[in-house]
Amino acid sequence: MKAHVYHAPGRSSWEDMKEPGIRDAADVIVRVSAVTICGTDLHILKGDVPEVRPGTVLGHEAVGEVVETGGEVRSVRAGDRVLVSCISACGRCSYCRVGAYGQCRGGGGWILGHTVHGTQAEYVRVPFADLSVHPLPSAVRDQDAVLLADVFPTAYEVGVLNGAVRPGDTVVVVGAGPVGLAAIATARLFSPARIVAVDVIPSRLTAARTFGADVQALEGEEPGQLVADLTDGLGADVVIEAVGAPESFEMCVRMVRPGGHVANVGVHEKPATLHLEDLWSKNVTLTTGLVDTRTTPALLRMLTDDRLPTAPMVTHTFSLGRMVEAYDTFTRASETDALKVVLTA
Amino acid sequence: MKAHVYHAPGRSSWEDMKEPGIRDAADVIVRVSAVTICGTDLHILKGDVPEVRPGTVLGHEAVGEVVETGGEVRSVRAGDRVLVSCISACGRCSYCRVGAYGQCRGGGGWILGHTVHGTQAEYVRVPFADLSVHPLPSAVRDQDAVLLADVFPTAYEVGVLNGAVRPGDTVVVVGAGPVGLAAIATARLFSPARIVAVDVIPSRLTAARTFGADVQALEGEEPGQLVADLTDGLGADVVIEAVGAPESFEMCVRMVRPGGHVANVGVHEKPATLHLEDLWSKNVTLTTGLVDTRTTPALLRMLTDDRLPTAPMVTHTFSLGRMVEAYDTFTRASETDALKVVLTA
Amino acid sequence: MKAHVYHAPGRSSWEDMKEPGIRDAADVIVRVSAVTICGTDLHILKGDVPEVRPGTVLGHEAVGEVVETGGEVRSVRAGDRVLVSCISACGRCSYCRVGAYGQCRGGGGWILGHTVHGTQAEYVRVPFADLSVHPLPSAVRDQDAVLLADVFPTAYEVGVLNGAVRPGDTVVVVGAGPVGLAAIATARLFSPARIVAVDVIPSRLTAARTFGADVQALEGEEPGQLVADLTDGLGADVVIEAVGAPESFEMCVRMVRPGGHVANVGVHEKPATLHLEDLWSKNVTLTTGLVDTRTTPALLRMLTDDRLPTAPMVTHTFSLGRMVEAYDTFTRASETDALKVVLTA
Amino acid sequence: MKAHVYHAPGRSSWEDMKEPGIRDAADVIVRVSAVTICGTDLHILKGDVPEVRPGTVLGHEAVGEVVETGGEVRSVRAGDRVLVSCISACGRCSYCRVGAYGQCRGGGGWILGHTVHGTQAEYVRVPFADLSVHPLPSAVRDQDAVLLADVFPTAYEVGVLNGAVRPGDTVVVVGAGPVGLAAIATARLFSPARIVAVDVIPSRLTAARTFGADVQALEGEEPGQLVADLTDGLGADVVIEAVGAPESFEMCVRMVRPGGHVANVGVHEKPATLHLEDLWSKNVTLTTGLVDTRTTPALLRMLTDDRLPTAPMVTHTFSLGRMVEAYDTFTRASETDALKVVLTA
Repeated sequence: MKAHVYHAPGRSSWEDMKEPGIRDAADVIVRVSAVTICGTDLHILKGDVPEVRPGTVLGHEAVGEVVETGGEVRSVRAGDRVLVSCISACGRCSYCRVGAYGQCRGGGGWILGHTVHGTQAEYVRVPFADLSVHPLPSAVRDQDAVLLADVFPTAYEVGVLNGAVRPGDTVVVVGAGPVGLAAIATARLFSPARIVAVDVIPSRLTAARTFGADVQALEGEEPGQLVADLTDGLGADVVIEAVGAPESFEMCVRMVRPGGHVANVGVHEKPATLHLEDLWSKNVTLTTGLVDTRTTPALLRMLTDDRLPTAPMVTHTFSLGRMVEAYDTFTRASETDALKVVLTA
Repeated sequence: MKAHVYHAPGRSSWEDMKEPGIRDAADVIVRVSAVTICGTDLHILKGDVPEVRPGTVLGHEAVGEVVETGGEVRSVRAGDRVLVSCISACGRCSYCRVGAYGQCRGGGGWILGHTVHGTQAEYVRVPFADLSVHPLPSAVRDQDAVLLADVFPTAYEVGVLNGAVRPGDTVVVVGAGPVGLAAIATARLFSPARIVAVDVIPSRLTAARTFGADVQALEGEEPGQLVADLTDGLGADVVIEAVGAPESFEMCVRMVRPGGHVANVGVHEKPATLHLEDLWSKNVTLTTGLVDTRTTPALLRMLTDDRLPTAPMVTHTFSLGRMVEAYDTFTRASETDALKVVLTA
Repeated sequence: MKAHVYHAPGRSSWEDMKEPGIRDAADVIVRVSAVTICGTDLHILKGDVPEVRPGTVLGHEAVGEVVETGGEVRSVRAGDRVLVSCISACGRCSYCRVGAYGQCRGGGGWILGHTVHGTQAEYVRVPFADLSVHPLPSAVRDQDAVLLADVFPTAYEVGVLNGAVRPGDTVVVVGAGPVGLAAIATARLFSPARIVAVDVIPSRLTAARTFGADVQALEGEEPGQLVADLTDGLGADVVIEAVGAPESFEMCVRMVRPGGHVANVGVHEKPATLHLEDLWSKNVTLTTGLVDTRTTPALLRMLTDDRLPTAPMVTHTFSLGRMVEAYDTFTRASETDALKVVLTA
Repeated sequence: MKAHVYHAPGRSSWEDMKEPGIRDAADVIVRVSAVTICGTDLHILKGDVPEVRPGTVLGHEAVGEVVETGGEVRSVRAGDRVLVSCISACGRCSYCRVGAYGQCRGGGGWILGHTVHGTQAEYVRVPFADLSVHPLPSAVRDQDAVLLADVFPTAYEVGVLNGAVRPGDTVVVVGAGPVGLAAIATARLFSPARIVAVDVIPSRLTAARTFGADVQALEGEEPGQLVADLTDGLGADVVIEAVGAPESFEMCVRMVRPGGHVANVGVHEKPATLHLEDLWSKNVTLTTGLVDTRTTPALLRMLTDDRLPTAPMVTHTFSLGRMVEAYDTFTRASETDALKVVLTA
C-alpha cells in the first residue's frame, strides 16, 4: 500500500509500505477513505516531536472501512464504516476507567502517527479498537466525520467543557484556526451571551463569524480592552487558548475575570510566564489537557442531527495520493486560507 | 485608644489613635479581645502593598465584643462576642451573591488593615457587619477562634476545596507555615490516603506531623522523587502551594499527576514560569484565590466540636500592648519557631 | 389605591385599600406598572393555601417604578424601574448565603401575596429590596420582564438546572403551561438533541413547538412508548414535571432512563406513588424545589439580548382595573387558550 | 465441585455441580477461598427475584485464586489472588464508559448468582474479568476483602457519594445492617459533624457505635424529633435509607432538611408514598442506585492502609461446606446478631 512516512526533520514521502496486519486480538485493520492533516503533524515534520521515529506513518485522524478484526473485538465487524479516533484507549487502566483516555496508562493514548503507524495511508491498524473506533451512520459524510477524530472533541472537551462555559457567559477564543473555530461552534451549545474571537489573520476572523463568533478582534488591536468594555471592566468568564504560544496564553490570562476560567487547548513548545503576583488573589482556574475523545459519541449524534458546522471547515480536498500537495496547502495556510484539508481515497 | 499604625516602609508603632465610630448603618464597632499577625502584615510593613496608605491601622483578624451597631445590622447586637473575618462582604454584588466575598465589588473584600483601619487596635469598625462578623459560642476560646478569621478558611477554601481533595488521595502541601499547617489539618477532613508536607525548616516539618502530615520532606531533598515513589511514578492527586515563591510553585506543578490539581494559596510577589510545553497535554487544573470566608460558619461548628487542631498553632501569646515585641517574634519565625502569635486585651 | 384582595375561598375583589408605606429600612415601595397571575393565585383563591389570611393582597410578580426606599436600601433608588421577584431574600441566613433564597430563614422566601400583601395592586411594599428587586434596562418591555418574576426562573432553576440538561440529551417536559413552556425554552440553552413536550391539550402542544419542542405527544397517547422509541428503549435523560399531579409525576418517573434525572417543578396537593421496587436499582435522581430566583440577573441579560421567547407567552393583556376579567380568562385557560395574562397600569 | 444451587422458592442445597470452564475469551475461572451471603440471596431464596432460574448457583461476592484465564484477559493471570466484584462490566457500552457498571448494557451488571452461576461454589466463572475482578495485595485478609465485593462499595457509592456527604454535615443512616454500618463507616471519610444511626434492633445500634455513629435512635422512638433537635429544627443534611421498606423510606424523607439529600440504598419490593404536597417546595434531592463498584480500587487501597473497619462486621465464619448452616445463621440475624457471615474454603 501507499503511506505517508516520516523520515527526518523536514523529510517525508508518500511511498510504498507493507500493509498492516492484526498484531493483537484487540486490533482492527481499517481501509482509509478519508484523512486530514493536523497542526501536530507539521510539528512532527519539523522534528519537534522526537519520540516519532523515522519510518513512522503519520496521521491520527481517519474515516474508513473495517476490513479485519482481532479475536476480541466486539463493537465493530468487517464492513463497518468507522471513525478512527486520535486517541486509543485500553479501557482497563485507572485513567480509562474514568474516561480519561488521553492519559491511558495501558498502551493507548495518542499513539497513532506518534508511537505506532498512523492513518495517512491506505490501511491502518487501530489498537484497542472497541474504545478507539466509532461506527458511523450512513447519513454522515466522510469529510464531516473525520473532523470528529480530533478537532471537534479537542475543542469541546479541552476548551468548552474544561472552561465550563455557561448560558449568559462572555467567552473569548484566542486563535481562530480549526480547533479555535470548533471551540466557537461548540461553546455555542451552552448559549453564552457572546463569543469574542481573536486572531492575527483577518480571514480567520471572518471564518470565526461563520462558526458563531459574535465579536471579532485582531490580536494587535487590544482585545483586552474590548473584552473589558463588553464586561463592565470585569473580564471574560471563559477564555480559551487555541494557539499554543506564550504571548497568546499570557493574553488569555490577562483577559479573564476574577473567578473565571482559562482553558488551554493550544500545543505549546515553550514555557509561559504566569503572573502570580496578579493572579494569586483572583480566584482563577487554569486547565490544560490532551483530548480524551470521551465525547465523540455525543458529538457524532450532533453531527448526525446536523447540529455541528463541520462543512465550512473543510476548505480543500485532495485525493489520497496527493498527500504532498495537501501538506503544502495546509502548511501555507496563511496564504491559502486553508482551515482543514481532507484527503479521500 | 491604642492602635498599631503603619507609617512608611519599615516604620509602624503602637500609638494613640482616635476611637472609631459608626460611619455607615451596616457598621459595628468591636472592642478587640484577641488579634493575630499575618504574613501579609509583614509584606505591608516592608512596603510591598502600596495601596496601604500611611496612617492606616494594620490587622485583619480579630475576636472581640460588639459595643455599637449601625441601624441596619440584624445579625449581631451590642454585647455579642464575635469573630471578625478578614473579608467584608456587601452581600449585594454579583460576587457576594455566589459567596465569592473575597471578590466583593460593593466595597468589601479584603479591606480591614488594607484600605480601612484594621484590627490591631483596642477598637475596630467593621463594615458590612452582617456578613463580616460571626457570633461565637462561649465554649470557644479567643485564641482558637481568631485563627478562623483568615488562616483556617484560607487553607480550607483556597487549598483543600479548590484542590478538590478526595478520600484516598495523595496530597502534597508545600510550605508548613500556619496556612500550610491548616491546609494539612483541613485536608484530613476528606480522608486522603496520605499527606506529604514539604518545607525548608525541619521544625516546621515536625509541626506538620502534629497537624496530620503522614510524610515529611525537606525541600532540598527531592520531594518530587519521594512523591513519585509513593504514587507508582504518577505524581500527587493534589498539590497545595502555601509558600508564595516561584520556585515553590514550579515544584508543585512538577509533582502533580496527570489529571491532578495544583491549588495555589501562597501570596506571590513575582511571576513564575509555567512549563506549558510539558503541561499542555497533562490535564492539570491550577487554581488561585483569595479566601471568601464562606466556610467560616462551618469551620466554627467544627471548632466548637473540637475537631480543628487550633491550639498547637498558637506558639506565642502577648498582651495587646506588646505589639512591637509580637511582630518581632513573628518576623523572626525561623529563629523563634513561631507559628501564630496571638495578642490579647 | 386599588388592590386585589383575597377574602375567603372563592371570594376576592378589586377594591380600595390603604397605600403601603415603608415599615422596615430594607423596604421599597413600588408603583406597579405590570402584573400577571400565577396558577398559585388560583390555588389560593380556591382556599388550598390556608396560610394566606383573608384581607391579603394577592400576587407575587410585578414590574414597576420605585417610589420610596427604606434607609438601608443600596441597590435601587426612587425612580428606578424594577422587576419585583416572587422571592424575597434576607441575604443573611444560611440559605441566602448559598443563593437558596427560596428557603430563606430570615423572613424572606415566598412572602408576597402569601404572608404579606402582594403585587396585584397599584402599589406594593417589597421587603429586603436589595436582593428582591432587579433594575430593568429601558429596552426591556414590562410585559416581557414580568415573566422573569417567577415563570422563567422557576422553569430554568427547578426544571432545567436541577434536571442537569446537557448537550445531546433527550429531554421530556410534561405539562406545556407557562412554566412548562419556559422549561422548553430554557432547556434549549443547553442544546439538547430533542425536547419532547407532553400535554393533554392540543393547543398547548402547538405552543410547545413555538417555544422549541421538537416532538409533541398527547398525554393519552403513550408518550412513554414514544420516548422509548426515540432513545433505543433507554428512556429520557431528563424529565421535567410541570403539572403538579400524581399521575403526571408517576409518568415522568416511568419515562426516565437509568442514570437520568426527574426534576419536579409542579405544585402538588396530593402524594404520589414512588415505585421503589423498580427504581431502587435504576440510579435515578429526583429533585424538587421552590425557585430561588438566583438566576434572575442572568435571565434578564438574556432577555435584554433578545434570547428568551417571552412575547408569545403573553396571550392576553388587560388594564389593571380589569383584574376580575383577567382572572376569569386565566381560570378558563382551556377555553381561552390563555398562557399568561398581563395587566398593566 | 460443590456449589449452592437454587431450586425453587424455599429450596436450595449444597450439592455436586460440574466445574465451570472458560466460555468467552474475557472470562476467568476463580477457585473460591471466601464467600459471603447477601440479603439479596435471601430474597432470591424466598422467590422474590423471579429472573433467577432454578439450577442457578447463588452468590455474587467472593475472594479466590485465578486458575484459568480467557485469551483476551489482560489484567490478571493464573495464580493471582483476586476480589470478585458483585458487578461485571463489559467496559464498552455507554454506561460502562462513564463508570456506571451497574447499568451495563453489554451483558454485564449484576449477573453473578442472578442470571449466571454465582460465587457460592468451589469454582466460579467470572465474565468480563478485566473490569470485574481486582488483584489483592497479600496483606489483605480474605474475610476483610470479601466485604468489598458488594457491601462497602454499595454503602459508599449509593449512600455516601450519592448523598453528597460534606464536612460538618448531620448524616442519618436508617438501618444498621451490614450496608448501613458500612455507610456509617464510609460517611466518616468526609468528616460529618455527626452521624445518627436508626434501627429497630438495639444490638445493631451498639454495632453502629463501633462503626462510627455518634448518636443512636430506636426507630420507634421518634428519631425525627431527635434529628430536629440536633439541627435547630432544620433536619438532616443527608439521610441514607439502608432498609428497603416503604415506612423506612418515608421516615427518611421526613427527616431531611430543605436542600438536603435522601440517598436510597435499600432494596425495595413495594412502592412508597412520596409526599409531594410537602416536598415540592423543599429543594430535596432523592437518589436511587445499584452499585457500580467503580470505587472498589480506592476502597481496596483504604483497606490495605487499614482505614476501613471491616473486621467487626464479620460476626460468624464457617467452612464452605457448612453453607446451609451459614444461611440459617444469617437468616436468623435478629437472634444470632449476625452481621456478615463468611465462608472459607
